[in-house]
Formats: sequence, C-alpha cells, structure tokens
Amino acid sequence: MRIKGTFLDEISHDIPHQNWGYQEWDEDFARMKAVGIEMVILIRCGYRKWQTFPSAVLKEEMECYEPTEDLVKMYLELSEKHQMDFYFGLYDSGKYWINQQFQEEVDLNKRLIDEVWEKYGHYPSFKGWYISQECSRGTAKIVDLYAELGKHCKQVSNNLPVMLSPYIDGIKNLSQYSGETSKNQGVSLKDHEKEWDIIFRGIKDAVDIVAFQDGHVEYDELIDFLKINKKLADRYGLECWTNTETFDRDMPIKFLPIKWDKLHLKMSLAEQAGIENAITFEFSHFMSPNSAYLQAGHLYNRYKEYIHKKQENEHRAIKAAV
Amino acid sequence: MRIKGTFLDEISHDIPHQNWGYQEWDEDFARMKAVGIEMVILIRCGYRKWQTFPSAVLKEEMECYEPTEDLVKMYLELSEKHQMDFYFGLYDSGKYWINQQFQEEVDLNKRLIDEVWEKYGHYPSFKGWYISQECSRGTAKIVDLYAELGKHCKQVSNNLPVMLSPYIDGIKNLSQYSGETSKNQGVSLKDHEKEWDIIFRGIKDAVDIVAFQDGHVEYDELIDFLKINKKLADRYGLECWTNTETFDRDMPIKFLPIKWDKLHLKMSLAEQAGIENAITFEFSHFMSPNSAYLQAGHLYNRYKEYIHKKQENEHRAIKAAV
Amino acid sequence: MRIKGTFLDEISHDIPHQNWGYQEWDEDFARMKAVGIEMVILIRCGYRKWQTFPSAVLKEEMECYEPTEDLVKMYLELSEKHQMDFYFGLYDSGKYWINQQFQEEVDLNKRLIDEVWEKYGHYPSFKGWYISQECSRGTAKIVDLYAELGKHCKQVSNNLPVMLSPYIDGIKNLSQYSGETSKNQGVSLKDHEKEWDIIFRGIKDAVDIVAFQDGHVEYDELIDFLKINKKLADRYGLECWTNTETFDRDMPIKFLPIKWDKLHLKMSLAEQAGIENAITFEFSHFMSPNSAYLQAGHLYNRYKEYIHKKQENEHRAIKAAV
Repeated sequence: MRIKGTFLDEISHDIPHQNWGYQEWDEDFARMKAVGIEMVILIRCGYRKWQTFPSAVLKEEMECYEPTEDLVKMYLELSEKHQMDFYFGLYDSGKYWINQQFQEEVDLNKRLIDEVWEKYGHYPSFKGWYISQECSRGTAKIVDLYAELGKHCKQVSNNLPVMLSPYIDGIKNLSQYSGETSKNQGVSLKDHEKEWDIIFRGIKDAVDIVAFQDGHVEYDELIDFLKINKKLADRYGLECWTNTETFDRDMPIKFLPIKWDKLHLKMSLAEQAGIENAITFEFSHFMSPNSAYLQAGHLYNRYKEYIHKKQENEHRAIKAAV
Repeated sequence: MRIKGTFLDEISHDIPHQNWGYQEWDEDFARMKAVGIEMVILIRCGYRKWQTFPSAVLKEEMECYEPTEDLVKMYLELSEKHQMDFYFGLYDSGKYWINQQFQEEVDLNKRLIDEVWEKYGHYPSFKGWYISQECSRGTAKIVDLYAELGKHCKQVSNNLPVMLSPYIDGIKNLSQYSGETSKNQGVSLKDHEKEWDIIFRGIKDAVDIVAFQDGHVEYDELIDFLKINKKLADRYGLECWTNTETFDRDMPIKFLPIKWDKLHLKMSLAEQAGIENAITFEFSHFMSPNSAYLQAGHLYNRYKEYIHKKQENEHRAIKAAV
Repeated sequence: MRIKGTFLDEISHDIPHQNWGYQEWDEDFARMKAVGIEMVILIRCGYRKWQTFPSAVLKEEMECYEPTEDLVKMYLELSEKHQMDFYFGLYDSGKYWINQQFQEEVDLNKRLIDEVWEKYGHYPSFKGWYISQECSRGTAKIVDLYAELGKHCKQVSNNLPVMLSPYIDGIKNLSQYSGETSKNQGVSLKDHEKEWDIIFRGIKDAVDIVAFQDGHVEYDELIDFLKINKKLADRYGLECWTNTETFDRDMPIKFLPIKWDKLHLKMSLAEQAGIENAITFEFSHFMSPNSAYLQAGHLYNRYKEYIHKKQENEHRAIKAAV
C-alpha cells in the first residue's frame, strides 16, 4: 500500500490556493516522485467561472474568466519531465446538483472533452480522465452522467482510463462551511452497499478506477466500508483504489494536514481490505515540504520514514528467503 | 492600475497578529516599497480597549490597556526611512454601531485627533487620515460622523487628505464569525447607488478619497458596482480608489491569501471602470514574503512578475511610438 | 511571573498535529529550556481511540489504535536530557461528560495509572500527574472524579504532585466548533467562587496545583477571577498557578498564536493577583520558533525580549541596593 497518485487541487473549491508558479510546481513534482507518486490528477479543469486553461468552450458557454496561466499545459509538460501520468479532471459548473440539470452538465463537458483532447491529446503524459462530479448516494441521474461522460472520454482518447472518487455519506459528511465536524447519523453499511451496487452496475463500462474518499466515516467504521467498496468493485470488474485524504476532518480549522498516525491507520485498513493502490487529496497542500502548511513537510518526512522501513523489511524478507 | 497603498492591520479586529517587532516591520516596509507601495494606512489606532500607542485620551475615557510598543511612532519613523506616506486611522470603540451612540464616537475621536496631531503631527511622514468606522448602507448618522470627523482631521492638520474604505452590502457581506461565505441576496445596484449618492453628497467637503472594499460581491457583479462608485465619486469631486482585498473570502478558513487570478481579475475590472489607484487590505499578512501565511510570499512573486511585465509592455510601447 | 511549564498537546483534541518526530521534539525542548520552561505536561495520554503509548489497558478496554511511536517514553527521555519535569496526563474517553459515567472513567484511569507507573515510574523525569478531565462548573461527580484519581496517582507514585487546569465558564466559553467567539453571559464572580469553594474543599487532599485557563473571560474581567482563584487556593492549601493561554480566542480562525500584548497583559494581571507561576497551552504550536504557525516564533522573540528586560531590571535593582 503506497500512495501512487495525488490530486492537483486546481481550481480549488475550498482550500486556499498557494499561488505557485512554474518553479514551485516543478519542485513539487520532484518531491512527489521522490516518495513514489507517479500520477497526478487535475481535480477539475474549471469550477464555475474559473478555469485552469483558456477553454473556448468554457469561455463561450459559461463566460469563464481568462486564466493568467495555462496550467493544463504546464502540468502535462511537468508530467513528461518527471515521468508521471496526468489525468484530466472535467469541468464542474457548481450548478448541476442544485438544479438537477444533469444533462446540461453532460453536454457541456462532452464539448469540453473534445476541445481538450484536440488541444492536449498529443502529450504523451496525458494518460487518463477524472470525472469531477463527486457524489455519495445513488440517483439514476448521476449514474447516467458518469456513464455518458466516461464513455465519451474513452471514445475520443482511444480508451484511456477513467477515474472516479466518490465519498461515503458518513458522519463527517458535512459542509465545509459548517463549524461542526460530525453529525449524528451516517449512511448504513447496508444502504451504502445497495446504492453503490446499482451505481457500479450502471458505470462498469464507462469507468475504470473508483477511489472512494476515506475521510467521511469514523476511523473504526472505515474497514467495513472499504471491504464493501472492494467487493462491489470486484463484482463489476472495476479497479478499487482508496483516496486516502491527507487533511484532517476532525479539527475546527478547515483544513490542515492530517496527523501521521491517522494516515497510517487508514492506509493499514485499506491494505487489510485488499486494496493495493492509493491516491490522495492532496500532496501539495497537505503532504509536501513546499506546502504553506509546514505540518505537511513533517508529514512528508514521517511518510518517507515509513516507506523506507517498508522497503528495508521487504529486502530483509527477500534475503531471509534466499 | 497598481497597488499604491496598504493598510497596517493594527489593532487587528479579526486577523491574528503576527507579533512583529521593529526589525520585521522594517523589512516589510522595504518589501512594500520594492513593489511600488508608497502609502501605509493604520487601519485603526485603537479598538475597544486595545491601542497602538499610549493615548492619554483613550486611557482616561476608555480605560484602554497600556501597549507594549508605540506603533504609531514606529510606523511614522519607518515611513520616513522608506519614504512612504503614513495615514492615521481613528479609534473604533466597537460600540457605536450597536448602540447608535454616534455622537459619543465622534466626540471621543475629536479629542483623540487633537492629541494625535499634537504628538505626531510634526513627523513629515504624517500625510493623511483614515476614518476607521466602516459602513455599507446609508444612514443619516454615519454621514454626520464622517463629515464631522473628516472636517476635524482636516482642520487640525492644515487640510491633510481624509480617506474612507466602505464596503458593499453584497452576497459575501457576512460576519467573519459565520461559517458561511455567502448569502442569497445582496444590495441591488440601484439601492447602492441611491444610498451612496446621499452619503457622498453629505461628506464631499470632509473626505478626499473613497476606496471601496472589492471583496463582498461576486466577481461577475463587481464591474457594475465599481462603475457606480466611480460615477458617484466623480459627481461629488471625490477621488475614487479601490481597496483590492488580498485575502480570500470564498474559503472556509477565515482568512488566508487570495489566489493571484482573483486579485488580477479584480484589478483589471477596476481599471476597466476607470479607477487608477488601489490600496489593499493588506500587505503584511496576505501579500508579503515575510507573512506567516506562506501563500502570501508566492502572491508577492506573482504580483512582481505582473508589474515587471507591465513595465516591459510600457517600454515596448514607448519605443514603438518613438 | 514567568512561564514555567507548557502542555504537550498529544493526543490533540482540537489543534492540528505538527507531525514531529524525535529530532523536532528534541529541538523544541531545547527552545523551551532557553526561555525558562522547566516542566512539560502531557495533556492526555489518550483521547477516545487514540493513544500516545501502546497501553495494554487502553487497547483491551477501549480498543485503542496502536500508536506509531511511544511518545511517553520519548518525552520522558527528552525531559531527562533537557533536565525538565514531566507530568503525565490521564486518559480522556471523550464520553464521561456526555453520559455521566464518571465512575467508569475513574475505574479505567486507575488501571491505567497502575500500568503507567509500572512502565514509566522509574524514569527520574517522571515528576507528576495531570488530570485531563477539564471542567468549569461544580458538580458532585467531578469532585469525586478528581479526588479519587488524584489520590490514586499520589498513592502509587509516592505522593508525586497532581495538577488540574480547569476553565472559567466565561463569555468565551464556547465550542471550538462554533464560529462565534463569545456569548452574552458568563458565570458570575459569585457563582464561580461558590462552586469552586466546594470543589477545592473536596479535592484538597488529592490535588496539589490548580492552574485555571485564563482565556475564557474578557481581559478586563480576568483580574477578579484570578483573585478569587488565588483566595480559594490559599484557603485550601492548594498551589494557585495560571494557565496563560498562548493562542487567540478572539479570532474567526481557530486557533492561531495570541498577540504578544494580550499575553503580556494576562501575565501582568496574574502577577497583580499574587500568582507566581504560569504554565501555558501551549508552547509547541503557539510560542515556538519551530511551530508551523510562524507567528509563534515572533511571539517567542517578544517573550524573550521581555524576560531579558526583566532580568536587566532585577540586576539593576540589586546593584542599586548594594
């Protein structure tokens, strides 16, 4: 169990931006690589009126603001330089779940996917897609959205993999704008299983990897949810990864890096559930020595010690076997 | 459009203090100067029982606590050293808007203005006044407060300029102590114009510069408010500046530095509205390489790149013209 | 009046962890020592399912998670290295005040105390106990809890001192998870005195040091509460210290380092009330040059200047007397 990928939180929804330029991102990709991260996932290419690259589609249809940099180009080039896989996150209008206008969200994103593939598809580091519309509970509409968008991504890109990162409607599933950190009642294991069985069945041909966020349930409930996710993914031939969050949902300050013990526990539980790959939300704020949150650099060091220890143990085991 | 001035957030109302001494402030003034900031505005000389200098008036009338440093003296001296203009912010009792005791606030501040001018008026860097009682909607009383205080400032100081920085009652006008970041309804353009027409008429002989805070409305509403502000200021012979906030009002964490793209957009919009000068709230927390918030240093670098690029373009234009 | 001790905020309840390893803690103990801190108090050895050392009792009875490090051992060794006194904080189940199961909390902690003393009692730096169940208002049950736990600590450890750090039910006594920073009504001086008279009478043989948190009342109310605390402690033969908090309760961001002027004022007031010793919550986040919150390092420098100035004044006074 190692962290193989990280989100790039641009455009950020709720975590203050770090205002990095090329040099800072270049350094950060090197730091990622040094602890085994080989995959970067742009969480969304645009959110409401903000965008990461100058998209003609988004400018015309959503009147998006002109970005000061083409971050998509920069990330693709840095991925090439550092030999990492880049996954492109779709556009989130910030409206679809309010007004139930799922089809508009789909149609817009399909035009955007075409534009993006034409513009950036030639980059060898362009390795996959991320559908940024996150959900936790099953509705027919969200299944259709995932299925239609996933299929379109695969179609234009010669079947590149598509990733989802849903969340569990657990006791820590609260608005970031609430002061509280937990509520009384989360989804039951039974309902979670029932609803995600339907969703997985509906998206199995359109999505390749599902990496549930691991931060919305209590630590002692996590293992059971992880096992259900793994079982369902296996049933429908999807890859089950975990999105092991590196920020702390238990604190009044929203959000700072997680305690190493918490991250360690969550990774161990995923391992117990038979999950082999993790991505995280996200390296650059919460786990990087370059982060504005200095706790993140210490988390990086603790994680580095952990992987070194693991490697030593593996070497020792191999030697012992020989 | 460049940022010509910054607030000094002492006594802070809602942003944690950085605990800087002389050396840190000296360095920070140099950093300001290096990006063209030539004006520092003490946001308030006192707030409730806290004060920035040992005022006899505030100690006697408000039982204010003895400060450990005379920050006013230090700021005036640093302004002299770095060739900057210092604006003095009046005292905010923290009571006047609750109890509607405007006259008491005025009377107290008039005695304070006398004390301050006698104590610090000889400093060549003492260049203006700031009325720290911020408002967003028109009431007869606030007009009287501004007019009476502004006139008194000008009277004692041989007509030094007086500045205001009001806010717009937009959808992001919420208490800092609320978890939320926006509300459903802000003031309409029509009401804003009507109310500020009355206020400007009432204060035109007492106030010189009005710099509205630009962070309380949605980014796509901002241009219309900026244009109204400019039109009204022109009508009454006031200078219309913008207070382009360098902290981010859209995040659950209150408050960290703003994303460069957001600041860039707001400055462009002010330019479009015909506004030439900006101040910001505020450099030392949100835009300084010395800030405890490390995102601020990166914002500084992005801003520096922007002004260099602008200068290059201007040089190129001049050369082309020659 | 100097700060003689600091809490070590492990397991943290509400302040994000810094993810320090041995090296960072070693450096931090040195920094503490350099400003006269001679005592470290582990605020709690465990909280809910998280623990600071691998306790057989907590694992068996509370199904606590295995910690990645034995922090108790590390702190005891670092205390020895830096010649500091270590106080051990008891376990907080996070349940007792909700379900009123005080006796379970007591019984569990008694078994834990036995385990801890057997495991770590031989360390020469093990110098006292801290009862981590904080309260502000008197109930018969909390008196029994303090009395029974305090006596058990003393009994197993050959009468090592026991410390409490209660809080005042002042206007700033709000949940950390509330956005607000104050409420309308706090406890009256009269009720505070009446209730704590009863508590002190009940715990006088079980507790040695009481250090009230000084951050829950307005600054201008503090002196009266400090005087009551001192008077009551004197009446029952307890040592009255103050817990002069180094974080700021007045800001929307929860929680960052306090302004030096506020800390300075609170220390002066404690001095006026005849209190000689202070502990703080806490050095490593809010007052340390190693803190992830960089304001803390500046607070450290301001505090260092203050103690140097004090020492100079004392030397001058001695010289003058000679």
